[in-house]
Amino acid sequence: MEWRTDHLRMLDQRRIPLATEYLILRNSSEVAEAILDMAVRGAPAIGIAGAYGMALAALYQEDLDEAANRLRNARPTAVNLGWAIDRVMATDRRFESILAEAQRIDAEDLELNLAIGRHGSDLIKPGFRILTICNTGALATAGHGTALGVIRTAHADGKAIHVYSCETRPRQQGLRLTAYELTVEGIPFHSIADSAAGTLMQQGRVDLVIAGADRIAANGDSANKIGTYSLAVLAHYHDIPFYIAAPYSTFDPKMPDGSGIPIEERDPRELTEIEGVRVAPEGTPVYNPGFDVTPGRLITGIITERGVFSPPYDFS
Amino acid sequence: MEWRTDHLRMLDQRRIPLATEYLILRNSSEVAEAILDMAVRGAPAIGIAGAYGMALAALYQEDLDEAANRLRNARPTAVNLGWAIDRVMATDRRFESILAEAQRIDAEDLELNLAIGRHGSDLIKPGFRILTICNTGALATAGHGTALGVIRTAHADGKAIHVYSCETRPRQQGLRLTAYELTVEGIPFHSIADSAAGTLMQQGRVDLVIAGADRIAANGDSANKIGTYSLAVLAHYHDIPFYIAAPYSTFDPKMPDGSGIPIEERDPRELTEIEGVRVAPEGTPVYNPGFDVTPGRLITGIITERGVFSPPYDFS
Repeated sequence: MEWRTDHLRMLDQRRIPLATEYLILRNSSEVAEAILDMAVRGAPAIGIAGAYGMALAALYQEDLDEAANRLRNARPTAVNLGWAIDRVMATDRRFESILAEAQRIDAEDLELNLAIGRHGSDLIKPGFRILTICNTGALATAGHGTALGVIRTAHADGKAIHVYSCETRPRQQGLRLTAYELTVEGIPFHSIADSAAGTLMQQGRVDLVIAGADRIAANGDSANKIGTYSLAVLAHYHDIPFYIAAPYSTFDPKMPDGSGIPIEERDPRELTEIEGVRVAPEGTPVYNPGFDVTPGRLITGIITERGVFSPPYDFS
Repeated sequence: MEWRTDHLRMLDQRRIPLATEYLILRNSSEVAEAILDMAVRGAPAIGIAGAYGMALAALYQEDLDEAANRLRNARPTAVNLGWAIDRVMATDRRFESILAEAQRIDAEDLELNLAIGRHGSDLIKPGFRILTICNTGALATAGHGTALGVIRTAHADGKAIHVYSCETRPRQQGLRLTAYELTVEGIPFHSIADSAAGTLMQQGRVDLVIAGADRIAANGDSANKIGTYSLAVLAHYHDIPFYIAAPYSTFDPKMPDGSGIPIEERDPRELTEIEGVRVAPEGTPVYNPGFDVTPGRLITGIITERGVFSPPYDFS
């Protein structure tokens, strides 16, 4: 994702790893749609996209408050999006000021991901087999990644880790994007069906589970990609540490617990169609929540750029 | 699946619900391949297919012992297959005797599924929301089904149930086959991603979980489709009853516990390709176990044609 004089150029993640294509975005509606349809995803990355979307709105003289609302509503679960929009709206709202703030958010994100990776790698022992879900890597952030950033740093530290990457139905971000990043980085891994995670734990083949987050309530309850909650329960049952890795901007101190976090229910076709081919019977009813909420009490620690927080959590 | 004078006619379940196509099978190798590639699946159905496969072997004068081994090895996890082959081999091994025994196994299976449904429906209270995995219906058996047979009987009993059907990656038998059967029967349901099951339980929207089995050890440890173990742990954590429904032929009294049950590891392409389209990066390494083993202590009851067994289990 890159600002280019008068437009935003964005890698279309829906096509990875099958094709490398870029979107050219020229207004806030196009950015909102890219977020909604997951051409860009990952809480930190959509925060950056939202900030650049506001720069487009300012450049092309849209109503800034309307543009801010449109972008905010594109992913209600994530809090970074609103946080980034608040930051650019706190400037004097001229195009140059909004763009400069968006570029600051972008540059800061890479720095704090490296710090998250540093703090997280301290928790990884040599030979650890690490299970993760969704994509929380360079594609989900300005670079390096959060949960996958921890994995990246641990690998760079020579810790001889092995990764199990959950497919992450329905959108398969693990199978498509995380497999792609791990392959490029040369980090040893296996992709697995989401339903095989419990079996790996039962076999004693998982030493640590790590996931990202889209919003963290004051008591540590963490919203993340659907399936994260199941992994936390399974890790708890098997006595395996379960960590969340996220920038401090993911905390929502005004939200006392996870019960108030809005959970986006998404298009049934995410489940029933794959690459445009329908696999379920016509008219199959689907329940397709995009996210779930893991209670703070199931989380061993929350890794941020400011260090690792342990329970009991109080971010109010 | 139907015996026709000199061949076995079999619905190709890999094409359901997209197409209704039949295979014409004329020797035991073709039947073994149909089992291996899941044109026919479901432990009871492959038992019946194995028995008919032996009838083909006898009709076309194959070496019967070789044919029996070939068929047995097509699905090592399931015990019904070996059980059905033992039954036809215990006859005088003439074609007519083997065919008659295969047809008896076929006819008996429908009867005992109706009995399983009867015993299981007694456990279902009006309004129950029932979560299930894979396909355990008419397509997996001679008719009616095991776990899905219980659902079918409860629905016919007017219990106003609602079903949540797990997709069941990698082969999506839930999304393809169970959705198809539930739609045809007019039983209210939602399909879900496997990873959404925990969230439904967390929301208090599941009253009972029911699954089939491919082999049950003497202590109740039950092998079934990958993902069943995770559902059992999640049900345990949320204090939701978890049942197995299977014919008595699924018990393997010679197997003291589940640790000895062979777990088939299957082709990586089951995960990385969908309808022939590759979705993962080239060369993605995959761990793809076809089954998992749920410890008997996580199973509230095992529903058979002989009644419902409760822990502690002893089928030795």
